[in-house]
Amino acid sequence: MLSKNKIKYIKSLELKKNRKEEKVFVAEGHKSVDELLDCFSCKLIVATSEWLSRHDDIKAQEIIEVSDDELAKASFLKSPQEVLAIFEQPEYKLDVSLPKNSLCLALDEVQDPGNLGTIVRVADWFGIENIFCSLGTADIYNPKTVQATMGAISRVKVHYCDLPAFISSLEGVKVYGTFLDGENLYDSAISENGLIVMGNEGNGISSEIEKMVNSKLLIPNYPVGRTTSESLNVAMATGIICAEFRRRIKR
Amino acid sequence: MLSKNKIKYIKSLELKKNRKEEKVFVAEGHKSVDELLDCFSCKLIVATSEWLSRHDDIKAQEIIEVSDDELAKASFLKSPQEVLAIFEQPEYKLDVSLPKNSLCLALDEVQDPGNLGTIVRVADWFGIENIFCSLGTADIYNPKTVQATMGAISRVKVHYCDLPAFISSLEGVKVYGTFLDGENLYDSAISENGLIVMGNEGNGISSEIEKMVNSKLLIPNYPVGRTTSESLNVAMATGIICAEFRRRIKR
Repeated sequence: MLSKNKIKYIKSLELKKNRKEEKVFVAEGHKSVDELLDCFSCKLIVATSEWLSRHDDIKAQEIIEVSDDELAKASFLKSPQEVLAIFEQPEYKLDVSLPKNSLCLALDEVQDPGNLGTIVRVADWFGIENIFCSLGTADIYNPKTVQATMGAISRVKVHYCDLPAFISSLEGVKVYGTFLDGENLYDSAISENGLIVMGNEGNGISSEIEKMVNSKLLIPNYPVGRTTSESLNVAMATGIICAEFRRRIKR
Repeated sequence: MLSKNKIKYIKSLELKKNRKEEKVFVAEGHKSVDELLDCFSCKLIVATSEWLSRHDDIKAQEIIEVSDDELAKASFLKSPQEVLAIFEQPEYKLDVSLPKNSLCLALDEVQDPGNLGTIVRVADWFGIENIFCSLGTADIYNPKTVQATMGAISRVKVHYCDLPAFISSLEGVKVYGTFLDGENLYDSAISENGLIVMGNEGNGISSEIEKMVNSKLLIPNYPVGRTTSESLNVAMATGIICAEFRRRIKR
């Protein structure tokens, strides 16, 4: 049985301000929740009896069994999926050696929660385990973003920082960025480790960060010269670039 | 001034049934509408005076000037963007020679309107001008899909057909499909022309169509063996595969 106060509390977590204050986030659906239970400290599980009967050893501070109708009242989804959970936000240490020792992403004001989630999911696929976000980038703990990561949030660490300051503090790190006047990705020299910067949906990479980019990359359209869309979606561009970085290592 | 009846009519076009009956679709935002005006027959423009003052030679059966508030009443967007237009649905002829003479996509029950729109946008980027969809695939004229194509709907033809029958009628065409047990995309022989089949978000490619696939492809994760998400989003996978097909032609 879900009290009105509990529903109100869960719904309040749609706002970043409240998530930040409580240091928690919401995840829904059995795929996501199952993966997150292995990685994050769980404060609350709200689930149907069917879901609970399949999970007899859940580590959560509180477990509430609900009907489908009750779950729908708390859910952020159009079609609620058996379980909703509240997890504690993890705390990560910002480590400037990460882009030196692995391939990392940086997001400069990516605004759309769905795009951020899709980027985390594709980063996970390609083994990119750290993403550095400017302070104005969408919040990884937005319920839509958590949903779009499809569980990848449990394997990819998303750090928020003063991005220009972070990048300028890096030493011996190759910094890549995508630009419409960049060099053909497939003709560019790329390294195994480094930092790939992706920019805002409308405005691309800020001029401050552009100055710190060592290598400007372009995903060439086909055939060159054909009239096409102005650009690719930022999540799509991220995926295509990550795929190419990983392909080349393997050769 | 926008009448109540007009608003009701526009809103009714959220449903496929009504779009099909009227043979029209809705597009919004100056980028999309500007591109579509060059390609499709326009039945109605609903726009602010600012937008109209920048467009003095619009070919549309009817033009209605509105305030921002009036536009908001008709719009499908959270933040309406100066203009909403109703276009006639184009009629395309189904031509079995297309996958023989160019690279084409086939979508087998892709459900999400946003995914379909993103696929059309990335297809446009890579010069793939024909997409064949099973009858159960999301409708290209869904307002969310039109929006997600960002104008690419004006350059990419989306055909609906009995997809298994269409594929089985093809002669001398290489048919590719993505499967989690497929061969590494980067080790596979690929051709310049042909048909790339992408499957449903949850279930992948149907077994009926799987039998017609000549070459099963897998986008390898990295590093191989690392625990990762179960799969990539279908639009993301489409983009990565199209990028690789086009990269190889250029070499």
